[in-house]
Amino acid sequence: MVMDKISISTLGKFVGEEVTVKGWLYNKRSSGKIKFIVLRDGSGYLQCIYFKGNVSPEIFELADKLGQESSIAVTGKVKEEKRAPGGYELDATGLEVINEAIDYPITLKEHGTEFLMDHRHLWLRSSKQVAILKIRHRIVKAIRDFFDNKGFTLMDPPILTPAACEGTSTLFETPYFDLGKAYLTQSGQLYAEAGAMALGKVYTFGPTFRAEKSKTRRHLTEFWMVEPEVAFNDLNDNMDLAEEFLEYVVQTVISEMTEELKVLERDTTKLQKVKRPLPRISYDEAVEILKKNGVDFEWGNDLGGADETIISNEFDMPVMVHRYPSAVKAFYMKRDPENPKLALAVDVLAPEGYGEVIGGSQREDDFDALLKRIEDNELPREAFEWYLDLRKYGSVPHSGFGLGLERTVSWICGLDHIRETIPFPRMIYRITP
Amino acid sequence: MVMDKISISTLGKFVGEEVTVKGWLYNKRSSGKIKFIVLRDGSGYLQCIYFKGNVSPEIFELADKLGQESSIAVTGKVKEEKRAPGGYELDATGLEVINEAIDYPITLKEHGTEFLMDHRHLWLRSSKQVAILKIRHRIVKAIRDFFDNKGFTLMDPPILTPAACEGTSTLFETPYFDLGKAYLTQSGQLYAEAGAMALGKVYTFGPTFRAEKSKTRRHLTEFWMVEPEVAFNDLNDNMDLAEEFLEYVVQTVISEMTEELKVLERDTTKLQKVKRPLPRISYDEAVEILKKNGVDFEWGNDLGGADETIISNEFDMPVMVHRYPSAVKAFYMKRDPENPKLALAVDVLAPEGYGEVIGGSQREDDFDALLKRIEDNELPREAFEWYLDLRKYGSVPHSGFGLGLERTVSWICGLDHIRETIPFPRMIYRITP
Repeated sequence: MVMDKISISTLGKFVGEEVTVKGWLYNKRSSGKIKFIVLRDGSGYLQCIYFKGNVSPEIFELADKLGQESSIAVTGKVKEEKRAPGGYELDATGLEVINEAIDYPITLKEHGTEFLMDHRHLWLRSSKQVAILKIRHRIVKAIRDFFDNKGFTLMDPPILTPAACEGTSTLFETPYFDLGKAYLTQSGQLYAEAGAMALGKVYTFGPTFRAEKSKTRRHLTEFWMVEPEVAFNDLNDNMDLAEEFLEYVVQTVISEMTEELKVLERDTTKLQKVKRPLPRISYDEAVEILKKNGVDFEWGNDLGGADETIISNEFDMPVMVHRYPSAVKAFYMKRDPENPKLALAVDVLAPEGYGEVIGGSQREDDFDALLKRIEDNELPREAFEWYLDLRKYGSVPHSGFGLGLERTVSWICGLDHIRETIPFPRMIYRITP
Repeated sequence: MVMDKISISTLGKFVGEEVTVKGWLYNKRSSGKIKFIVLRDGSGYLQCIYFKGNVSPEIFELADKLGQESSIAVTGKVKEEKRAPGGYELDATGLEVINEAIDYPITLKEHGTEFLMDHRHLWLRSSKQVAILKIRHRIVKAIRDFFDNKGFTLMDPPILTPAACEGTSTLFETPYFDLGKAYLTQSGQLYAEAGAMALGKVYTFGPTFRAEKSKTRRHLTEFWMVEPEVAFNDLNDNMDLAEEFLEYVVQTVISEMTEELKVLERDTTKLQKVKRPLPRISYDEAVEILKKNGVDFEWGNDLGGADETIISNEFDMPVMVHRYPSAVKAFYMKRDPENPKLALAVDVLAPEGYGEVIGGSQREDDFDALLKRIEDNELPREAFEWYLDLRKYGSVPHSGFGLGLERTVSWICGLDHIRETIPFPRMIYRITP
């Protein structure tokens, strides 16, 4: 009996047996009396070899004629073959067409970016995109495992929110029944703070949105963010957590996804260096680095993308920059008791020019200080009453950070543009397919 | 040296030692020369006992005076105590106030639903809400583990979509730069289908939205859905997957979350019965059940909530109802080759009146049939060109289903209303806090 429903990744269990494998024709070539078909099924790639003498003339001809991405079922005997991708090949005898694909638009030649993005639903089938999506999945799993194993509770924050966290200019808005407008969340942090007071250690992990008119290779309008928040953690604890987290994620992924990283031709030597302790420098020290490198930088400004690259180039692993001028940071960040002009913030800059992957802070836990900050920023107090309540009833020091998933995928995969890090990217000029 | 940063859940490692634990005052009582404080820190509950003779008069008085939800640090010696929640208690000597809470709004008496929902950010701290959120987290983890262990790839679908999957009347919409409008996704399924053609087995897991004016105890406007999609699976494979999945999730949660289910006073005997094989009945058989129960039901109608309850009451575990009239099901469902009036759909109805928790189908994989369905439903072909492409280039039979997370949490926790299943629920009349 020929076995059915066998995936390429499990072929090692069937050496010497006759099997049928279903999938798509990824590539083919011909060499006189032999036809080669490379089959893909999402779990791997399998070279199927048709010898002219072993199969009927019809099948031999079919193996030559079938177009790329035709769905097929191949039958044959599994052979060990060290040189083959995956380690096995198929001595093929049968070939059944499920659905013939004629003129598949994405060939193995070069295509323009717009063309590929218009065909994103098909482009996902290419080996590079498959590798990226699998690495993305492994990163997500590593992130969740890290927090789950440390006793954090997952807390899904709302996507539809009543008020703007930091101004409405970069918010997507939607009518909400009789309640006026709702806005798509930019961050689950404020809600995570309520969660930390209930559960001690929480993390949120979901999509966030920014209606920003930034057309750069680092920006998406829709992206996923993970945000841990921990009661009783101060800025130093927060940095300890961030570096342990980053080490775990990077080391797990590079040790488990070697095949996929190879497909992407990623040089992982720099990723191997992501180990604790990560360098920690203050904003003041960062400014010194910029000046040393000839940048005309004024103390008090925020660091731009180009500044971040110059700073991170001084280190061969991610660098933590802490204690920024409070004027350039969010209202909810606690001031440094030793210098109230500084916020107890920390950003983690990835190496190789990938920019900020983590942004975090210790939060303002004093009711009066937070209220003043809300008023100074002309935010509507009413919308933040519930957030102020967290400082009224059993306030505690607490800290957290956010890591952008797509920037992390981009960095670990070594990609030029963030658009390939998510199945269906959303940018200011793209909402399809 | 007194140890710092110890969570209640790990106290078993410190029996006989003096420790400091930080958290919130959950409850207190007094008995002459003894004061009891129940401390909570998110990881558990700890009874701290202050003997008049062992502490200063100031501390003894403080233990009496402090309000509920004050944040405190208690110091004392860890003692084993079988009768205590968690198995340990603290022979307390120190009490430090971090932030005193005065007149915490949620007391241990009964409050109205609207009051509790208005104070959701604080209500989350109550033991029942903590238990629900921890069970929700464990359900999410069980769902992800199930698919991860079976070789599925996670595929995050877009939230912002260009077109309506099934009409625009129940969609939230937002202006999208110069590209017109974007709609919040109702389902990631169509995108998951593209993913299944690339990766074989995928699942999506994210928030979905319905701008439906349903004010029932089963409806949220924002809810999470997991949607597996598998290439080469037919309807039977789909039902096999659904029942294995449901068994895994329910059995994992009831065996690992016994403490939390006890807090909720959940009778788990019915949940223990959720084991394969689940009963499978056709829509025709479901109609017979309704008629037998005196319901005036016409063949061809969809099953309503009340109908579902009557049907599920005939079984003591979830029941799969398959092969519905195609007229009441979505355009993308494949017709039954043996009776084209039927769609190869399956819904899984939870017992105890919790209604549909899973809806799925085999998908239409024939280009012409799908195109006709799109035209018959007066859907804009242009918006579905990419979806039709999946039937043009290597189409294969494929199936999938969606499970609503909040309904599943509601069922497993045995809740009366879906609003307690998610940290910050969104309903037609509620967008805050």
